[in-house]
Amino acid sequence: MKHDIGLIGLAVMGQNLVLNMANNGFSVAVYNRTTSVTDEFVNDLPDRPEDVVHSGTADRIDGYHTVEEFVQNLKTPRRVMIMVKAGGPVDAVIEQLKPLLDKGDIIIDGGNSEYADTNRRTEDLRESGFRFIGTGVSGGEEGALKGPSIMPGGDKEGWPFVKDIFQKISAKVGPNNDIPCCEWVGEAGAGHYVKMVHNGIEYGDMQLICEAYYILKHTLGLSNEELYQVFKEWNEGKLESYLIEITRDIFTVKDPETGNYLVDDILDTAKQKGTGKWMSQHALDLGVPTTLITEAVYARCLSGQKDARVRASKVLEGPEVKFDGDKKQFIDDVREALYASKLVSYAQGYVQLDAAAKEFGWKLNNGDIALLWRGGCIIRSRFLQDIKAAFDKNPDLENLLLDDFFKKAIDEAQPSWRRVVASAVNNGLPVPGFGAALTYYDGYRQDRLPANLLQAQRDYFGAHTYERVDKERGETFHTDWIRERNLT
Amino acid sequence: MKHDIGLIGLAVMGQNLVLNMANNGFSVAVYNRTTSVTDEFVNDLPDRPEDVVHSGTADRIDGYHTVEEFVQNLKTPRRVMIMVKAGGPVDAVIEQLKPLLDKGDIIIDGGNSEYADTNRRTEDLRESGFRFIGTGVSGGEEGALKGPSIMPGGDKEGWPFVKDIFQKISAKVGPNNDIPCCEWVGEAGAGHYVKMVHNGIEYGDMQLICEAYYILKHTLGLSNEELYQVFKEWNEGKLESYLIEITRDIFTVKDPETGNYLVDDILDTAKQKGTGKWMSQHALDLGVPTTLITEAVYARCLSGQKDARVRASKVLEGPEVKFDGDKKQFIDDVREALYASKLVSYAQGYVQLDAAAKEFGWKLNNGDIALLWRGGCIIRSRFLQDIKAAFDKNPDLENLLLDDFFKKAIDEAQPSWRRVVASAVNNGLPVPGFGAALTYYDGYRQDRLPANLLQAQRDYFGAHTYERVDKERGETFHTDWIRERNLT
Repeated sequence: MKHDIGLIGLAVMGQNLVLNMANNGFSVAVYNRTTSVTDEFVNDLPDRPEDVVHSGTADRIDGYHTVEEFVQNLKTPRRVMIMVKAGGPVDAVIEQLKPLLDKGDIIIDGGNSEYADTNRRTEDLRESGFRFIGTGVSGGEEGALKGPSIMPGGDKEGWPFVKDIFQKISAKVGPNNDIPCCEWVGEAGAGHYVKMVHNGIEYGDMQLICEAYYILKHTLGLSNEELYQVFKEWNEGKLESYLIEITRDIFTVKDPETGNYLVDDILDTAKQKGTGKWMSQHALDLGVPTTLITEAVYARCLSGQKDARVRASKVLEGPEVKFDGDKKQFIDDVREALYASKLVSYAQGYVQLDAAAKEFGWKLNNGDIALLWRGGCIIRSRFLQDIKAAFDKNPDLENLLLDDFFKKAIDEAQPSWRRVVASAVNNGLPVPGFGAALTYYDGYRQDRLPANLLQAQRDYFGAHTYERVDKERGETFHTDWIRERNLT
Repeated sequence: MKHDIGLIGLAVMGQNLVLNMANNGFSVAVYNRTTSVTDEFVNDLPDRPEDVVHSGTADRIDGYHTVEEFVQNLKTPRRVMIMVKAGGPVDAVIEQLKPLLDKGDIIIDGGNSEYADTNRRTEDLRESGFRFIGTGVSGGEEGALKGPSIMPGGDKEGWPFVKDIFQKISAKVGPNNDIPCCEWVGEAGAGHYVKMVHNGIEYGDMQLICEAYYILKHTLGLSNEELYQVFKEWNEGKLESYLIEITRDIFTVKDPETGNYLVDDILDTAKQKGTGKWMSQHALDLGVPTTLITEAVYARCLSGQKDARVRASKVLEGPEVKFDGDKKQFIDDVREALYASKLVSYAQGYVQLDAAAKEFGWKLNNGDIALLWRGGCIIRSRFLQDIKAAFDKNPDLENLLLDDFFKKAIDEAQPSWRRVVASAVNNGLPVPGFGAALTYYDGYRQDRLPANLLQAQRDYFGAHTYERVDKERGETFHTDWIRERNLT
């Protein structure tokens, strides 16, 4: 019997997606360039634990040694999912498949591709008569096996053919645990773009949590036990989320060898894989101020310059850390600062999504996107339900900060937020995320920024012209400043 | 008689460079695709004022209607300078020239090209036997005419053939006004890279001045007359620079129609031409935290969202601005905050230059680069002399902040700097540049940042591994956090 779907590329993510599909009753053909990987995967199925390989699952998976056999054993229209390294390898597999497939077959790229590649592939493959889907898949190895967040975009004609499979294998949320974290995102690279924004937001969330930790540790001197209690409490309130939860747990883990809390033995150099960087670079192209996520990326860069920092720490001075307020109040202040900053991060992310959608002509449903992230992925949180509600109330909401619910939240958080940032400034503790968030909030709500002076400067030295407050937009003026200046 | 040099592209920058060369005694052949532009330029020479077209200059300039004639009338090895729009047009002119030139001829691109294009062209033209120079030229129209800052890079074999011309036409600095702001920068795209960094730093300087203006205006309620006095005083001290000087002058100019100070009638939407953006995007690629310049770019983006800000200003609330300190002291505080932030901006710019040099295998002389910017260009300032001195003292200085002179300056400025940023935070005034600078300073001087927690999170959810404080760098560890966690 022919298979419901085929998957190429049996690294861990690919394997786990295959298992997830087969556990959900779909039959799957698998192919890997190194055929021994295919054989091992298929042969080991019976030996794997029942919660990984359900009863009957092994019978639904067949391995093939050639792409030709693999393709011949798929139901038509064929569904082929590619899970290989982003970039050239994806194109190589597509070229290999094209002569073997029929018009109307569906090719799905589930890797971490750049949206621009997905834009191009959707177009190219449509011209060749195929239906291409580029989908973000989030949730890591465990998510892939048990229910990831899935963000498909590309050629919408392909969607009906994969919808059932993808929605079945995805994470579920809602009171009855039956709302899939998988819905059609939009045209061309929209799915991978949304995945990139997800990852950027993840960078932001993680950075903000680190700053909260840093401030609490250095301002109040909280121990790991106390930090555990703080994050435990936070996870029971409006900050409830996967990342707060695992942070709470991290503070409980001791290193068996040293007996220290493990977090204290870990080197403070963060690594990155590039999606936060891509998002920032495209924000700059679009001209939208995604400041917090960019600061989070830069914070990772600075953390990576460990040796330079150690040298600098011996030379450069700062203030002594002082605190003479109420400890409990300050902890609450940090919680509020974290919440408000997180909101700004998501607000900026959605502004960028809107700008990208406009740039590329995509129709995105922002509420649905919040729902995709509600489960299965790293940024899953209670908060996303409130975002979904905000966009359901007003699908054209131009900035999350303008939603009534969030405006009220910010109003409540604001005094705390300012106290925490000012305290960090005075105590010499770097909080790039909290600071960028507050600065954006304060900039965005100004009807007048000092850019009038900046345009005056540009007109002065470069005749770049300026617009006027008392004239129509788009009408430009130039002044010969040297002639007009009136030095006293 | 044949000409010393030829120039293609007679827009204003091209025209003024031709005049500058001819005013300095060089004979110049000119060509423009639209031949009427050439004719007009050449025919109008006798009618232009003596300070623009010196005596004898008109005789040294000849226009040609074909590239063939133009090339035939150049001394060998031929020197051809291209001043056309960056991108495709530069390549088109090069392709047009190649069959007409001899091996060993020198092609110079003086436009605002991206360094990556210059990398490529240097390589391609070297293979074809030509010597290619890509040079940054800064100083706007007036600089081009009277003495720009010139930043040449590319094929060093070409340098001896243009050195004399370029150094003669460049700006001069030093006690005897005889040190040219033009020196060989380095291989391939190094010249255009340095120009890009110059422009990024210009973005930073302008943003910081705008923030100083904004704080003084909104915290102390200074009038334009008072702002003039403040900037006048600042320009007589360590902040002395072209941008402070023109800012001072801007506050004196009234609009003849409205009678208002013109700066108040200018719309607060800053435009940009892209080099600050390129610099930020490449900082992200290199993994160096050029935070201030990126914030300056984003601040321009936010200023551009004028309508959105006006809408937001009607909804979002902030604190009342309060000030009950000493006015004179606060003005001094702002001066110190501006100075310290500016220093951080240059420090970040040089860190990026070093990283780029490493990436591309360029040998850069940081002190010489400071000297190139000492005159002729927009960021010219007294301050650059101190930077030159710092690099002369220690050519391998890894960060300007570590230089004794600047460390002392920061130590003096630090209390003021923190007071200003904390005041802005409490008063709801956005100061992204001041804030990013202080945050970078505080981050860079930490031997320990909270990235240990971030790596713990990444290892928890994605098995991304971590390094340890008590083990060799490069050795990585993974923990099964779920198994090890010890919830109490």
